[in-house]
Amino acid sequence: MSILAVGSVAFDSIATPSGRVKDILGGSGTYFALSASYFTDVRLVAVVGEDFTAEHESVFKKRKIDTRGIERAKGKTFRWGGQYLENLNEAKTDFTELNVFQEFRPIIPAEYMDSKFLFLGNVQPTKQAEVRRKMNHVQLTGCDTMNFWIQGARAELLETLKLIDVLLINDGEAKMLAGERNLPRAAQKVLAMGPQALVIKHGEYGATIFFREGAFGIGRHPFRAPTLPIDEVKDPTGAGDSFAGGFMGYIASQETLNREVLKRALFYGGVMGSFAVERFGTERLQNLDREEIESRFEIFRELTHLE
Amino acid sequence: MSILAVGSVAFDSIATPSGRVKDILGGSGTYFALSASYFTDVRLVAVVGEDFTAEHESVFKKRKIDTRGIERAKGKTFRWGGQYLENLNEAKTDFTELNVFQEFRPIIPAEYMDSKFLFLGNVQPTKQAEVRRKMNHVQLTGCDTMNFWIQGARAELLETLKLIDVLLINDGEAKMLAGERNLPRAAQKVLAMGPQALVIKHGEYGATIFFREGAFGIGRHPFRAPTLPIDEVKDPTGAGDSFAGGFMGYIASQETLNREVLKRALFYGGVMGSFAVERFGTERLQNLDREEIESRFEIFRELTHLE
Repeated sequence: MSILAVGSVAFDSIATPSGRVKDILGGSGTYFALSASYFTDVRLVAVVGEDFTAEHESVFKKRKIDTRGIERAKGKTFRWGGQYLENLNEAKTDFTELNVFQEFRPIIPAEYMDSKFLFLGNVQPTKQAEVRRKMNHVQLTGCDTMNFWIQGARAELLETLKLIDVLLINDGEAKMLAGERNLPRAAQKVLAMGPQALVIKHGEYGATIFFREGAFGIGRHPFRAPTLPIDEVKDPTGAGDSFAGGFMGYIASQETLNREVLKRALFYGGVMGSFAVERFGTERLQNLDREEIESRFEIFRELTHLE
Repeated sequence: MSILAVGSVAFDSIATPSGRVKDILGGSGTYFALSASYFTDVRLVAVVGEDFTAEHESVFKKRKIDTRGIERAKGKTFRWGGQYLENLNEAKTDFTELNVFQEFRPIIPAEYMDSKFLFLGNVQPTKQAEVRRKMNHVQLTGCDTMNFWIQGARAELLETLKLIDVLLINDGEAKMLAGERNLPRAAQKVLAMGPQALVIKHGEYGATIFFREGAFGIGRHPFRAPTLPIDEVKDPTGAGDSFAGGFMGYIASQETLNREVLKRALFYGGVMGSFAVERFGTERLQNLDREEIESRFEIFRELTHLE
């Protein structure tokens, strides 16, 4: 079923040990949408400036992503510049020009209102909550956030967490949000804030999902899916958003919603993240097929499968 | 079957966010031996000074570890001081006093010469090779090393790697040894140096084992076992050595030697590492039972088990 994603579309300038690129298509919404598009229909709500061309849009169109929700505003598109030096796991931001993203208020086209699955990308928590409240047919809402909001808009974020089903954040964010260093304990504290499940992303080591008692079926144990850089890591940008796209996209493609589906979704998240980093920007995510995805899913399944 | 371990016995002074301790029993050989002792008989070759008391020795005796290989030398026992500040994954060394460990030349008691399993802890590579060459009944040799030897005694280390079966190192060490950032490629380069299998430890995220083509059976895929800090992390010291003890100890306890055994051993490594960090020093490793170990093994198995 269709998934509605709210996020950013940006032009990124990136330097890594493998090279550098300037003003290439990026943004959390872009990576998420491309990644999810291999599993289900995707509708994207974002804002771009006058410098967003038909050629840029064709990247989405080729993946059959519904772009009616991409608002064209006066001004320039969000721009980000960053570099990965010795440590490929950590970006050093060179510049952030929010441009039209500064005043982004997500507008949901009428045709999108029947969406059953919703992903709230990393935007201001109050805007996330506004979108969630408007959508009356949503069965499951995934949500991203970041340190900036955890520290700077905590009260608003806590309100948003009451409205969502699955929060997807990284180790550092989970520990900061919970005020607790121990991962399983941090997870329990975050779950008590509202979400039914919490996905903690461990970068190149995969991700762990923690469930609220009784949510999505029975069981008290968390679940971890791996990832492994199969090919060269050229550009880590967008790995987390691609993970979220694989995770949410797989869930939206399934008939039922239970723990086993969420576990498999966690694997698909790791799979899509591992593809994303193999080329600069979205290049690899533009040119995949389901067979490659299934083949890597099998590699990752074997990676953790004990007889 | 009995496992012979060569390593250090030390007195550690440690500060972590949970507290501080002074001159407590530690050292790679100590953590390894205590951890492995829950799976099989352990023989320890190490050196201590005149300050090593019967009370210290009783820690080994209580776990039925054979201490005839612990040499008493004139002088003081190896001392290490370090602290874990914000990041529990990284120790900042305050001081290292090698003392009697400086001139350590492993002496293998005659009663140990029939050992079928050997673990060469992190000592100078030439000394590791000397021990390996002396042992004529060994079926499997595990080996640890560190950045210091990878950079400072590379030629000697490469000789040692030709003599061993399983190398256990962490991500940074594997990448440094191979001169390659991509983990699977780094693993292939290290395997080409000699070992039949390579265990890369990911700290709090578990470990991955890579196999040389045809080694320990058929299959081309690596395998990953998780770890998860179930209880509070009070003191990360010795986690890697405890991992090695669980891994090697489980292997030595099995009748056969194949990939499935090595995979399960990787789980037991994660289990023992997760116990070790729950208390300061070796406290937790002194007071475990097999039931607790099996129960945590099950938690970790469920953590990655896809239907």
